[in-house]
This record gives sequence, C-alpha cells and structure tokens, in this order.
Amino acid sequence: MKWCRVEAPDGASYAELDGEHVELLDAAPFADCRRTGRRYRLDEMKLLPPVIPANFYAAGLNFGSHVEWAKQYHGMTHLKIPDQADIGYRSPSALIGSGADIVVPLDSSGPVEYEGELVAIIGRRAKYLAENDALECVAGYTLGNDLSERAWQKSDRTLWRAKNCDTWKPMGPFITTGLDPMNLTISVKINGENAAEYTTDKMLFSAQHYIAEISRYMTLWPGDVIWLGTDNPTLPDLKHGNVCEIIQEEIGVLRNPVVRASA
Amino acid sequence: MKWCRVEAPDGASYAELDGEHVELLDAAPFADCRRTGRRYRLDEMKLLPPVIPANFYAAGLNFGSHVEWAKQYHGMTHLKIPDQADIGYRSPSALIGSGADIVVPLDSSGPVEYEGELVAIIGRRAKYLAENDALECVAGYTLGNDLSERAWQKSDRTLWRAKNCDTWKPMGPFITTGLDPMNLTISVKINGENAAEYTTDKMLFSAQHYIAEISRYMTLWPGDVIWLGTDNPTLPDLKHGNVCEIIQEEIGVLRNPVVRASA
Repeated sequence: MKWCRVEAPDGASYAELDGEHVELLDAAPFADCRRTGRRYRLDEMKLLPPVIPANFYAAGLNFGSHVEWAKQYHGMTHLKIPDQADIGYRSPSALIGSGADIVVPLDSSGPVEYEGELVAIIGRRAKYLAENDALECVAGYTLGNDLSERAWQKSDRTLWRAKNCDTWKPMGPFITTGLDPMNLTISVKINGENAAEYTTDKMLFSAQHYIAEISRYMTLWPGDVIWLGTDNPTLPDLKHGNVCEIIQEEIGVLRNPVVRASA
Repeated sequence: MKWCRVEAPDGASYAELDGEHVELLDAAPFADCRRTGRRYRLDEMKLLPPVIPANFYAAGLNFGSHVEWAKQYHGMTHLKIPDQADIGYRSPSALIGSGADIVVPLDSSGPVEYEGELVAIIGRRAKYLAENDALECVAGYTLGNDLSERAWQKSDRTLWRAKNCDTWKPMGPFITTGLDPMNLTISVKINGENAAEYTTDKMLFSAQHYIAEISRYMTLWPGDVIWLGTDNPTLPDLKHGNVCEIIQEEIGVLRNPVVRASA
C-alpha cells in the first residue's frame, strides 16, 4: 500500500494511492481512518511531506564509508565511526514535499550536498520495544534528503543551519508499507544522471536497533520519523538549477529542484 | 496577562488565568481566540505544558559561568564559550507540565541535574527579523527545566537521552506577557531550599539576538519555543523524592517531583 499527503481543495489531506489516482483519507493512514470517495489524478496534486512529525529523529552517522569519506574529503577530523546508536534531531520547519524547491540562502558559501536516506514512519505509540519486535510499530517507509551545508557543519557548534534551513528536509514522495528496511537500494540522480547508490544492509545500526534503543528512553508516537543516515560520498554538491532525485523502487522518486535565494 | 494549558473535562485546552480561576479559550492564546465562559478553579486543574511546539529550540550554552563550571566540575573539556548563537534542538516527546513527575530511568547512573531556563514562546509567523524588532514575534515567556544526565552527556555522541528522556522537559506553569527577557531573576529550590539563582542579563546572546539569528534561516511558527540556557552550577543533583522548583516572580513556579523508575 502507498500513502501520501496532498494539497487538496479543502487543505492538506492524507491520501491513498490507487494507480494514477489518489483517494483522500479522513485521518492519518496509521490512525483509524476511512477513504472518503474523493479521488483526484495524482499528477494534478501538489505533494506535501507525507507526515509532519511531532518528533524528528535522525541517525546522522550510520554508514562507515560515509563517515570515513566526510573525515577525509571535508576535513571533518572530529568524526568517528559511532560505537552506539545515539540518535540526533532535525526540525520539522525544514520539511518540504517532493516537487518543492530547495532554497539555498544567499550567505551560504557551500558546498550544499544531498544525503539520500531511508525514513521509518512510526505508526503506533510504543515504548520498551525488544529489537525483534521493533519494526511492528513502523507504519511504512519513505525517503528523505538530509541536505547539508558542509561549511556550516564545520564552523558551527550545532547542526542548526547546516541541516535545518527552511526547505532543507525534503521528504516523500510516498509512504510504502511492507518493506524490509535492511534490504533496499537507494540511489541519487542529479539532473537525471546517476550520482550515488548504496544498499541499506550496510547500516552500522539497523532500523530495528535504533527504534528499540530510542524506545528505552522515549515514547515513540504515531507520525514520528526516524531518518536512518546515508552512505558513501554525497557529490557533486548542488547548484542553482540542479534537480536532485532520491530514488527507491517501491517508494518512488523524491524530486526537488535547487535554487539560490534571490536578494 | 497569563495563559496556561489544562486538562479540561473535554480534553486539553488553552486557558486564561483570572485570579484563582482559569477560563478556557477556544484556540491558542496567540491565535485568533475567544474566552468560552467555562471557568474552573486553578487548584483543581492539571496543568499541561503551556504549548506543544512544532519546533523546539534550545540555546544550550548561553551563560559563561555555567560553561566554565561544567568544564571544571564535570570534566566536560570539549566545552567552550560559544562565539556565535548556534541554536540546538530538544524533542517535544519529553515535555511535561508543572506538577507531573520527572522519572529517572533505572539505568541512569546520574548525576541528573536541573537547568532552570527562561523560555520564549513564538506568537506569530516570522522570518528575517531585525534584532531590534525580534521580540515582537514573542507571545510571552514561560519557564523550562532542561534536565540533564551528566554521564550520558559525556559518553554519548548526541544529547538524545542526556536531555530528552520522557518527562525530562518540564515547562510552565504559565505564559506571561509583557516581560523584558533580559531583566529577570530565575531561582531554583530543591525541597523548598534555595539551590541556585541567576539573572538573565548575563546571557552571552540575548533573546532578541537568538530570535533574529534563527529567523535568518528558519521560519518561526506560532507555538515554537526557544529555551534560553541556564547560568551557574546546577547542584545538588536530583534524587528520588526530591521536589524541584524553577521560579520567576511574574511567571510562577514550575514544580516537579523526582522519582526513580520502578522495574
């Protein structure tokens, strides 16, 4: 099953995909929801982030090759391969849906790089999960682009503007159910050309491990999202006019143009 | 004016204080809201966090004496006085209201320490604010207790469980309008005894500076909160049975008992 959130005539609405159409739902798909009978052509709808999370978790460093590359290529000498699954945070204010512009602030020297990530979407309230049962609280999976301004990532004490500028957290296009999060291929295209590809089986800490660990200390709530990190170099850096696509076969294509802010 | 959020018979509701009573509002006080005529005695109401923010900002290090003390007393040698206003994040899942228990997980070795903080609550959508105008987007101020587990703060890569365990972000009791955020005295009592006191004029970066800086990159939304940091040592550490109070005269007393989780 595939779900999304769309800008419907009456406002933002969850919807279920049905071929080339969407049918609006009267609540979140992971809540007690019903189909409303209101159908639209998918290609006529503006896609929104498939959920606005109350709590926005991000693994950050979860693939060894990416950590080693960032250390060497970007001189991020403080980075090391994590020895435990410490989760980080991003801000919902930065979320946009597939199709919306990624806007680079005027005072960014860059580079601004994509990070194509798998995203787990929590479907039910959960705490104290065993790792073996942890995926049962996941409603489905989507894609995220953890845009990163590498100069600010090095200069600042926190990741605030390096990761959380307005429009810098594209998420979508769809929530897909029934996937094995540890057996997916995620690829990235810039202007239609292959830029990167990795498989999720290389995660340092699995989706189920992260979820179980978080749930030892924090209640997970329906709609919370956990971004699971990216592998490999994240080049080339993004320029005005580029179109960045994060792709996974069963989830779809998260496609966002890049523009430089005007004065 | 003072506002709060309470557990009313029909569910969570914003309310306006009127002496020893509260009157429910039909929307957030910083939205287009009306008084409903439904009044209750304040001392019969359960207080909730005065707002659940979409975006939960926290300054972290914003007072020189606290940074120097944490370096020396806790051996946090990586800390230094920040040279720019880089904001951090906390997770709304950790919020509780005044009166609710702070629960310390069984596997925390401690120390668990309070951090009494001033909190700015955003009242209207804002971006690109000049520092001189920045406070105009603030609806009012409340208090926060940025509970911190110092062992995890040192051992972990992020502040996830050191700062964001369930119940570890008490906020309240009320939102008070018309305050000068740079001219307040905040004090802390443990079991009724004075433990700490500081004045907000010692902030390294003012409330208006933080708000203006954030707004260069991120849209501020109604209900967003900005926790502005704490000064001085944050001792003694908290034990089962303690009652921790964060106090500011015009805002009130944020009072929370501390309990150790049972097995």
